[in-house]
Amino acid sequence: MSLTARRLKPLLDRVLVEKIVAPTRTAAGILLPVTTTKLNSGVVIATGTGAWTQDGGLTPVSVKEGDKVLLPEFGGTQIVLGDKEFSLYHNDDLLGIHEE
Amino acid sequence: MSLTARRLKPLLDRVLVEKIVAPTRTAAGILLPVTTTKLNSGVVIATGTGAWTQDGGLTPVSVKEGDKVLLPEFGGTQIVLGDKEFSLYHNDDLLGIHEE
Amino acid sequence: MSLTARRLKPLLDRVLVEKIVAPTRTAAGILLPVTTTKLNSGVVIATGTGAWTQDGGLTPVSVKEGDKVLLPEFGGTQIVLGDKEFSLYHNDDLLGIHEE
Amino acid sequence: MSLTARRLKPLLDRVLVEKIVAPTRTAAGILLPVTTTKLNSGVVIATGTGAWTQDGGLTPVSVKEGDKVLLPEFGGTQIVLGDKEFSLYHNDDLLGIHEE
Amino acid sequence: MSLTARRLKPLLDRVLVEKIVAPTRTAAGILLPVTTTKLNSGVVIATGTGAWTQDGGLTPVSVKEGDKVLLPEFGGTQIVLGDKEFSLYHNDDLLGIHEE
Amino acid sequence: MSLTARRLKPLLDRVLVEKIVAPTRTAAGILLPVTTTKLNSGVVIATGTGAWTQDGGLTPVSVKEGDKVLLPEFGGTQIVLGDKEFSLYHNDDLLGIHEE
Amino acid sequence: MSLTARRLKPLLDRVLVEKIVAPTRTAAGILLPVTTTKLNSGVVIATGTGAWTQDGGLTPVSVKEGDKVLLPEFGGTQIVLGDKEFSLYHNDDLLGIHEE
Repeated sequence: MSLTARRLKPLLDRVLVEKIVAPTRTAAGILLPVTTTKLNSGVVIATGTGAWTQDGGLTPVSVKEGDKVLLPEFGGTQIVLGDKEFSLYHNDDLLGIHEE
Repeated sequence: MSLTARRLKPLLDRVLVEKIVAPTRTAAGILLPVTTTKLNSGVVIATGTGAWTQDGGLTPVSVKEGDKVLLPEFGGTQIVLGDKEFSLYHNDDLLGIHEE
Repeated sequence: MSLTARRLKPLLDRVLVEKIVAPTRTAAGILLPVTTTKLNSGVVIATGTGAWTQDGGLTPVSVKEGDKVLLPEFGGTQIVLGDKEFSLYHNDDLLGIHEE
Repeated sequence: MSLTARRLKPLLDRVLVEKIVAPTRTAAGILLPVTTTKLNSGVVIATGTGAWTQDGGLTPVSVKEGDKVLLPEFGGTQIVLGDKEFSLYHNDDLLGIHEE
Repeated sequence: MSLTARRLKPLLDRVLVEKIVAPTRTAAGILLPVTTTKLNSGVVIATGTGAWTQDGGLTPVSVKEGDKVLLPEFGGTQIVLGDKEFSLYHNDDLLGIHEE
Repeated sequence: MSLTARRLKPLLDRVLVEKIVAPTRTAAGILLPVTTTKLNSGVVIATGTGAWTQDGGLTPVSVKEGDKVLLPEFGGTQIVLGDKEFSLYHNDDLLGIHEE
Repeated sequence: MSLTARRLKPLLDRVLVEKIVAPTRTAAGILLPVTTTKLNSGVVIATGTGAWTQDGGLTPVSVKEGDKVLLPEFGGTQIVLGDKEFSLYHNDDLLGIHEE
């Protein structure tokens, strides 16, 4: 988890996510087959405070820092913060939370 | 029903569905004719808590875990969880519940 | 009216309709001319409980089981339940009720 | 005015209209010139109870049975009821009422 | 101002307007140059009672009979009433009132 | 500022603006270079009373007569009033106010 | 920070931003490699008071003068004020705040 990313406060209903990259070789350096589960998942790094409603209220964001989330195949905004790549999603675009 | 899928909590008004695949051969191995009813149905594995309204309320999801639902011909997001394929639908896209 | 169809509970503002097919020959087997009124009508088999409003209320469905309804020329979702064909319409798409 | 049409109850904000056809020959059989006013008007045969608002209220229909209305050049749903042709309009699509 | 037009009651937020045609020759019959101000203006002949809001209220029409209004270059519905041409505009489409 | 324009009362959320044309030669007749700041600005001549909300309230216009406003590059309705050209903008389309 | 820009008051939910340009050579004149982080960021110079809701309330702007914000790759309105280039964004289009 990048300290730099932690210092970006997403606005409104946006969620900052660091994608989980499936390892392609083991710690010992052995190449893993490509057929390994290619999960489109990420870890929530930071969230906005939510979108404003027409009543002056806030629709809360559905996830919190540290949640492991299932991401849509397309969409999200790719950004680079401190040499690492992150993604910003609107809360509505996140599909689900992987519970453990 | 997959334990892994059970551990995905869909967000907002999303519903996680496992499609029902019509058997193509009997338990004894006899091939069934293709004309067997090709139902586009599924079983609800998990649901979100509902979509937020502009009033700060939640529009509830219309189905619950275990419901057998009629699915639209197109749409839904295909996802793979623990080697099995599932679909995520917005609550509004589900057509009906097969009551028994 | 199909028992199987009766056992499908449409969701939200959907209405399950069985289309009325104009008879093409009489009970005695005499072929009727094609010019017989080709009504695009159906019988309501089951209805949803209505669509949710932003206030947490339900907009009621305008028709009830047994109503004979005038259908739009296009639209509706064709589904097969127990070897018979039915259609699902959103309540808003139904044009009128044939009163008797 | 057709009895059959009278027996169709339009749903929601729909209005059933019978178009006024300009006579092309007099009662005595004399052909009238084509330049006679080609009014796109009709008589209201039946109306729905109105469209639902997000508050659970009904937006009333602006016309009543017997009103002579000015119709838009395009739009409306043509339907045949008991050998006569009628049109269904959404209340919003009617342009005005010819007062007498 | 046409009596026939006066007898058309526009529905909802519609405004019946008679366009002002710039005179092309003087009362004495002298042809005026084409460069005369080509105002796209009109006189309000009749108005609807306003559009319904989601609260069951009426958004009032901004103009009244006799107001001289500035019209948009395009849009409006051309209609013929008693041999004269008029236009129907939605209240929102009128640009301004020429005050005197 | 044109008296004629002052006599146009914009409707709803419209704002009547007279664009500021950068002088191309000095009072003494000396031609100025084209590179002079080409501000897309204008002076507010008159405003509407605001747009109606669904609650029967008025969303006020953000500018007042005499304000010097920054205009969008495209949009606005060009009109001619008393030989001078003006523009009508919806309040939402104005970018900012030049404070002095 | 430009004094001229400070004197532009953005309207409604608009935010005036001065983009941060990555230095391409050091103070001593040494050219920096192009691969230096190309941040799409800016400093907030001024903000509007917020957008009006249908309730007559104001949805506040999420940033304040001096905030260092992450900007979307596309969008925003480029404007020139006093020989310097600035950008106007709608509050919703700003991605996040760089906290320090």
